[in-house]
Amino acid sequence: MRVLIIGGVAGGASCAARLRRLDEHAEIVLIERGPFVSYANCGLPYHVGGVIEQEQSLLVASAATLRAQLALDVRTGCEAVAIDAAARRVTLREVASGATRSESYDALVLAPGAVSVRPPFPGIELPGIFALRTVPDARAMRAWIERDGPHVAAQRRGRAVVVGGGFIGLETAENLARRGIATTVVELLDQVLPPLDRELARIVEERLRAHGVELVLGDGVAAFERGADGALTVSTKAGRALPADLVVLALGVRPDTALAKAAGLAIGERGGIRVDAQMRTSDPHIYAVGDVVQERDTVTGDAALVALAGPANRQGRIAADAIAGRKSAFRGAQGTAIVGLFGLAVAWTGATEKALRRRGESDYEKVYLHPGSHAGYYPGAKPIALKLLFRKSDGKLLGAQACGEDGVDKRISALAAFLQMGATVYDLEEAELCYAPQFGSAKDPVNLAGMIAANTLRGDLPLAHWAERGEGLLLDVREASEVEAESVPGAVHIPLGELRARLSELPREREIHVFCRSGQRAYLATRLLLQRGFRARDLSGGVLSRRHLLA
Amino acid sequence: MRVLIIGGVAGGASCAARLRRLDEHAEIVLIERGPFVSYANCGLPYHVGGVIEQEQSLLVASAATLRAQLALDVRTGCEAVAIDAAARRVTLREVASGATRSESYDALVLAPGAVSVRPPFPGIELPGIFALRTVPDARAMRAWIERDGPHVAAQRRGRAVVVGGGFIGLETAENLARRGIATTVVELLDQVLPPLDRELARIVEERLRAHGVELVLGDGVAAFERGADGALTVSTKAGRALPADLVVLALGVRPDTALAKAAGLAIGERGGIRVDAQMRTSDPHIYAVGDVVQERDTVTGDAALVALAGPANRQGRIAADAIAGRKSAFRGAQGTAIVGLFGLAVAWTGATEKALRRRGESDYEKVYLHPGSHAGYYPGAKPIALKLLFRKSDGKLLGAQACGEDGVDKRISALAAFLQMGATVYDLEEAELCYAPQFGSAKDPVNLAGMIAANTLRGDLPLAHWAERGEGLLLDVREASEVEAESVPGAVHIPLGELRARLSELPREREIHVFCRSGQRAYLATRLLLQRGFRARDLSGGVLSRRHLLA
Repeated sequence: MRVLIIGGVAGGASCAARLRRLDEHAEIVLIERGPFVSYANCGLPYHVGGVIEQEQSLLVASAATLRAQLALDVRTGCEAVAIDAAARRVTLREVASGATRSESYDALVLAPGAVSVRPPFPGIELPGIFALRTVPDARAMRAWIERDGPHVAAQRRGRAVVVGGGFIGLETAENLARRGIATTVVELLDQVLPPLDRELARIVEERLRAHGVELVLGDGVAAFERGADGALTVSTKAGRALPADLVVLALGVRPDTALAKAAGLAIGERGGIRVDAQMRTSDPHIYAVGDVVQERDTVTGDAALVALAGPANRQGRIAADAIAGRKSAFRGAQGTAIVGLFGLAVAWTGATEKALRRRGESDYEKVYLHPGSHAGYYPGAKPIALKLLFRKSDGKLLGAQACGEDGVDKRISALAAFLQMGATVYDLEEAELCYAPQFGSAKDPVNLAGMIAANTLRGDLPLAHWAERGEGLLLDVREASEVEAESVPGAVHIPLGELRARLSELPREREIHVFCRSGQRAYLATRLLLQRGFRARDLSGGVLSRRHLLA
Repeated sequence: MRVLIIGGVAGGASCAARLRRLDEHAEIVLIERGPFVSYANCGLPYHVGGVIEQEQSLLVASAATLRAQLALDVRTGCEAVAIDAAARRVTLREVASGATRSESYDALVLAPGAVSVRPPFPGIELPGIFALRTVPDARAMRAWIERDGPHVAAQRRGRAVVVGGGFIGLETAENLARRGIATTVVELLDQVLPPLDRELARIVEERLRAHGVELVLGDGVAAFERGADGALTVSTKAGRALPADLVVLALGVRPDTALAKAAGLAIGERGGIRVDAQMRTSDPHIYAVGDVVQERDTVTGDAALVALAGPANRQGRIAADAIAGRKSAFRGAQGTAIVGLFGLAVAWTGATEKALRRRGESDYEKVYLHPGSHAGYYPGAKPIALKLLFRKSDGKLLGAQACGEDGVDKRISALAAFLQMGATVYDLEEAELCYAPQFGSAKDPVNLAGMIAANTLRGDLPLAHWAERGEGLLLDVREASEVEAESVPGAVHIPLGELRARLSELPREREIHVFCRSGQRAYLATRLLLQRGFRARDLSGGVLSRRHLLA
């Protein structure tokens, strides 16, 4: 059996390695356009920033290792330029020489990845404008920073403009700022991290700005120009002129389907190669894995493009299984992701509210909470801003997003496990996670999220939300000192401890929207009021959520 | 409705608070023998060590707060001395005055917790011998350390002996060592952390010793004596004489069932109060929650005593639900726990191999692995020693244990979520956890554990284990430099990269037990050998596991 694999990074390399483990006798040819196979593209921004100092560190497995240990026929600097599906042949071209040759296959795996979106902005080819997808990209950017770019004008700080506020853009911005470069991020949407719900993105934006990264939101690039001094100017649609010694294009990626399209393979509605659960394309001898395919979103069931390393690796394994005659199946992707920025982590799994709304869903509810990363009585706990989305009709978990300096990856990983297993918020109530005072709380944030959600579904805790609460008397049950520090206009103030004695001050005909700092006292107050015959709702997340929901 | 709750810490306080939220009109009396309600007993060792400097920090909610916010009738310094179940009355006694009174109830909740095991060792009443269950215990120990104990002989370092190597004993030992006190732990078993499998405990023991804590394993206390200079001597059964200025008894706890027994309530086979899923005892008006009850182990189905704050809190809520006429049910406890010691975390969830063996189970398999806490190409990754137990017949996850400096709580929390939801190792293969290079890997340790386990169950990766491998040729596929640094006696050495060329050196009639450093290369070698007609098994966990399995 002869298997050609086009693309030697995450999905392709995983497929090749798995296939060798399943079939010692197959001829496996791994073809990679660039100079390296199996490199860590998720580490590229950190190589630019110097956190990962050696380029060598990014090379997870060298071609030599893959040859020696896995007996793979690894060909770097080689690209596939055409597929003859009927004849089961691929035309390969040596990048250096341009020489082409045709090779046969029994099975072909397409793992070319994605290409950076690169709109035809005037000036986009100017020197100093970079993308960041490959090791050579990172090498070029480092060389520019160290030799050419910010040193053009040695009397001032280097300046960079990052175009695109997705996670690669922001990671790159952090790493440029870390090198002392004055960095501005330009993002067309009115928030960074477009997949995330806006109120969570607001927390990230605060952090970026606090570390000197300028954000230009709701504006896009119009053109790039280069002045007489060699410096670039980024002109935006809104008329800004941003000076830059370095520009990074991080406008996202799209599946690299050129080869597949030319071969007549079916392309899905989202623009990725259409595959079945065994990663087989519309041609039974051709498989596709990684960023080039479109997959099923496990929560919504919709087609999705998920350009993440984890699913790519799983797909590579599954294609190898299929080629070796095994029947494993890709379950789809739930889109778990995390980004670390200036000590803050933001992570999510499953559906966002944005995605649910886009689908026209109304059978969902959300809760906000702000628990500590561990027990408050042990020093060093950090708040976690957590948003949980769940189905109103049956309590099924739909998604979660969290942001904070500590313990965010842990909670979203646990919630990702629950989501994968079809858990409800009632399961989260009963979760038994790790607790010792340095690591968690007897009631972990995951438990608390489940409890609040379950209280809501059981009818014990009617919710209101700051940005969509309609009419209602605002009741602030915090202590006087807290109100003094951050007051909410128009709110009646009765501290929780005085509430039973001061019920006569509250109206019975009007809905009361109760809040405190984060939600615990408002919950108690809401329960009290409901049982005393008032119409009360808890403003989910308290003033801590208000800041970002109304920002 | 009048509800008396005996015991005002985790389970009792949770029950009272939940009940108030469900029933604004009930009369709720919270009775606590000690001076404080709702305090953080898990923080006591850290208060002794000065990590939590202020005693006030341990008081999660004061009696005054509970009165003001929840309208609870809180009575500290008050204990229950008798229950008249037929008359639904309890006799209460003021600890200070000794005055007793009888009070009626509609529902009674017993949450007295556990008492420290305190064998009748000669000299156990001597000054300088402490337990650590309450805030006053911690206060007394701190006062002794600061004034009396280690200062008896000011010319030398203070010395402490901790009797019992369970997690409270070890946390206390760490905190005493942190205060500069020379600390010895005496444990009757041949390992610390008795619930844990021994090979994982070995890693903890190494860490303790590396930080100067002496361990006396497999030996127990015979007697305590006090010398003329005021210093104590701990005599052991094996004849040791350990000098000490301070002794801490941490021999574990047993349910405080005196009151329940006297009232004729049913006690279970493990010695805890027997309750149903609504936490109702054999008397329909009496509930019990927390360390005093015995519960169902969710993995084995056996009765268990789980003295942990998380389950206690959940039980308190469930008893409140039942009293308020709601039907929630306690699902049992899976025994998730974590301990942090000198920068090392050790955590576990579900069944240990020890527990499975004790039950006579044979339908299980285990894998060991040593992945990094995050991507190896990003600086600062720390190894995690992970042991996964799963059912051979259907792949169901049974339990997991992990040890390391980073990311242990995250992986065991995710695995705890999977275990709760009845996941199989095939689900772990497909897990989609948080990955960015600072936080994880494209193949997370949870994925890797699932993949190895699934490979084993599919027959692709026959396993052997170092301590029980029987006959077999040892084949070391590491590089020469690694073998030089740590050789394994009797092993044939062929680096993986040379294996295909040197197959003729290996016997075909004999089973070959393949190993490398942690398992990845041995897996490749095992697959290669199996497909080339050899009888091969992978020695799970490689030399990294060998160290602790044969120690």
